Amino acid sequence: MSPFTGSASRTDEWRHLRLTLDSGVATVTLDRPDRLNALTFGAYADLRDLLPELARDGSIRALVLGGEGRGFCSGGDVDDIIGATLAMDTARLLDFNRMTGQVVRALRDCPFPVIAAVHGVAAGAGAVLALAADFRVADPTARFVFLFTRVGLSGGDMGAAYLLPRVVGLGHATRLLMLGDPVHAAEAERIGLISQLTEPGGAPAAAQDLARRLADGPALAHAQTKALLNAELDMPLAASLELDAATQALLMHSADYAEFHAAFTEKRPPAWRGR
Amino acid sequence: MSPFTGSASRTDEWRHLRLTLDSGVATVTLDRPDRLNALTFGAYADLRDLLPELARDGSIRALVLGGEGRGFCSGGDVDDIIGATLAMDTARLLDFNRMTGQVVRALRDCPFPVIAAVHGVAAGAGAVLALAADFRVADPTARFVFLFTRVGLSGGDMGAAYLLPRVVGLGHATRLLMLGDPVHAAEAERIGLISQLTEPGGAPAAAQDLARRLADGPALAHAQTKALLNAELDMPLAASLELDAATQALLMHSADYAEFHAAFTEKRPPAWRGR
Amino acid sequence: MSPFTGSASRTDEWRHLRLTLDSGVATVTLDRPDRLNALTFGAYADLRDLLPELARDGSIRALVLGGEGRGFCSGGDVDDIIGATLAMDTARLLDFNRMTGQVVRALRDCPFPVIAAVHGVAAGAGAVLALAADFRVADPTARFVFLFTRVGLSGGDMGAAYLLPRVVGLGHATRLLMLGDPVHAAEAERIGLISQLTEPGGAPAAAQDLARRLADGPALAHAQTKALLNAELDMPLAASLELDAATQALLMHSADYAEFHAAFTEKRPPAWRGR
Repeated sequence: MSPFTGSASRTDEWRHLRLTLDSGVATVTLDRPDRLNALTFGAYADLRDLLPELARDGSIRALVLGGEGRGFCSGGDVDDIIGATLAMDTARLLDFNRMTGQVVRALRDCPFPVIAAVHGVAAGAGAVLALAADFRVADPTARFVFLFTRVGLSGGDMGAAYLLPRVVGLGHATRLLMLGDPVHAAEAERIGLISQLTEPGGAPAAAQDLARRLADGPALAHAQTKALLNAELDMPLAASLELDAATQALLMHSADYAEFHAAFTEKRPPAWRGR
Repeated sequence: MSPFTGSASRTDEWRHLRLTLDSGVATVTLDRPDRLNALTFGAYADLRDLLPELARDGSIRALVLGGEGRGFCSGGDVDDIIGATLAMDTARLLDFNRMTGQVVRALRDCPFPVIAAVHGVAAGAGAVLALAADFRVADPTARFVFLFTRVGLSGGDMGAAYLLPRVVGLGHATRLLMLGDPVHAAEAERIGLISQLTEPGGAPAAAQDLARRLADGPALAHAQTKALLNAELDMPLAASLELDAATQALLMHSADYAEFHAAFTEKRPPAWRGR
Repeated sequence: MSPFTGSASRTDEWRHLRLTLDSGVATVTLDRPDRLNALTFGAYADLRDLLPELARDGSIRALVLGGEGRGFCSGGDVDDIIGATLAMDTARLLDFNRMTGQVVRALRDCPFPVIAAVHGVAAGAGAVLALAADFRVADPTARFVFLFTRVGLSGGDMGAAYLLPRVVGLGHATRLLMLGDPVHAAEAERIGLISQLTEPGGAPAAAQDLARRLADGPALAHAQTKALLNAELDMPLAASLELDAATQALLMHSADYAEFHAAFTEKRPPAWRGR
């Protein structure tokens, strides 16, 4: 638990997703398999609220995001969301679309790595949730479909027009966002959209293995690596070097850095404490 | 036609390139096959002026840019352009080089996707015209040659030092711009410089097919996707998410978004109107 | 020699690395093979000071950076550096980490291309030195290990969190910097981290060949290409186009551009002068 606890209490029950905790690894499962885990307003709001709670907790070292059933996530529900937005006024539409962006910010801002475990379809908002993760562990059934233009919307939804060119390059990103065609696992791996390709059905277990490795590792080093990757996408080189220098000077006074040296000298594995 | 028509008239005849229009698809052909479509001052000026006219028109939904004869475009003509620039004073040189950059801005700023249909050589300014397009449809004879240093100039011509690292990464971009060696189709595909590799001789037809698909699709969604990809290359994540939210809120009040939902409900294909 | 010579004298002897000069090609060799060329405080300081001296010289047209013995560079020495930093106060730690960043800036800012010749291990700071070069010429034994988190530090060391996503994309960069796993030559080539893969043992010779080709080429054009690639990573498109236009107008008044045209007309190779 972070020492900086305020008045905010933990949410007792997340009604629109499934959360399990296991020694530093949080697993969030989209659990609406009869609809291919299509997102509802409630699911978006739960993701937006859950991530800052987990970040505040201080004991979470890695998060796995996966989907129950035949696929990862088919995106915003056509009935529950597209239908409903047709009746919304301007202010309500802006509220809704800001909320979806807040989920992406929460995924990028949380101080632990996020691993998307992808099998089957990751479509629309589901594709962007995977894209906003730090790692995409996928099996050969995975397909990413940035289908926004196919429903008449901009391909730049939830930060996709910012993130995708920085992951796969502007050429591939333009093609994927403009056309909305599926990207199957083999192509996704070839263009750098997948971090790790597993055996068929192996994505959940491989994602848990990676999460365990990360959770048992130097959590402060991981958190700062993520923070600097995020920050330096938007910074010039000279300022980035100054940020790096200050960050490393800080971490060189950390317990984990001293522990590395002690363990190295004593020829034993380090016992990381994340501070 | 855009409702916002002013006094500017259409150009009756483009003397330095060939333009055809077909139900929303504009095709611009560089047509100087005896010189491998080497660009002249007139061709640059026509490209600079044509694209804003097409953008103003409002009925253009996609543009194909191709070359007549044995290749796409061999770049600035050695006699007509390099020879002439040797006699120019500073102000005139700046005028010329700004004009070439305005062609690239026009390609990036026009509110419809641009498809380069590449066969044979795309060299110098020809390589950058292809690079500035949204899609590069190329056949196995295509080769891209960013040959600027080989004539004693900077590899960063017409935005190449901005665009190429964002398409293929900084490592490949440095190599291509510094050395000016040809990149053949297979390598171009491997590093993400090509959007679609076709059969030999198949680039023009495949480019037309893609243009037709785009022109018959949701034009406003395509235009906003392009605008956001452009804008968000130069924006931080938080601002990009805000731009995305406002854009989607806007498009959720568009005719095409309502049409998607109606068509989905009625199990028929949507009839896109581009508004 | 640059015409703008001031009071600063050349360093007579570089004690922490080996420097050889050969008709415009400088070769810097990390020469501590019994420690896999682990970097010491002295080696960092020499790299920081040497590069501006070479830049001031004016006769250097290309630089090769390599390692003696079994590998390129194993990074900061665990005893000499990690051990020593544990005893440093905040100001001293900041000094040290700024110095390492100054080496990266010097590599990016020097007005000639830098070629890393990589065989065996390039780990930690060694991996970032290679990353900060313009070209990475590597043989099949090469492996890059961004191992910072494994010692409890941020993966964003010496600009790695800025440079690596721009070279291999954000997905691969996150994986490499967060986990610190080795990237072997085949993967490094596949993701764009290597500029040229050579025969076993062939990296030093291939790097010299490339340096010779660059040194005998149009040096001013190379310098401006590097400057624009650096600058335009941090600039928007419109400003980049203006910078390109001014740069090309300038170079069109250079001796080398006129020489290209004369040589082309006379059907002979150009005699580049680098001005």
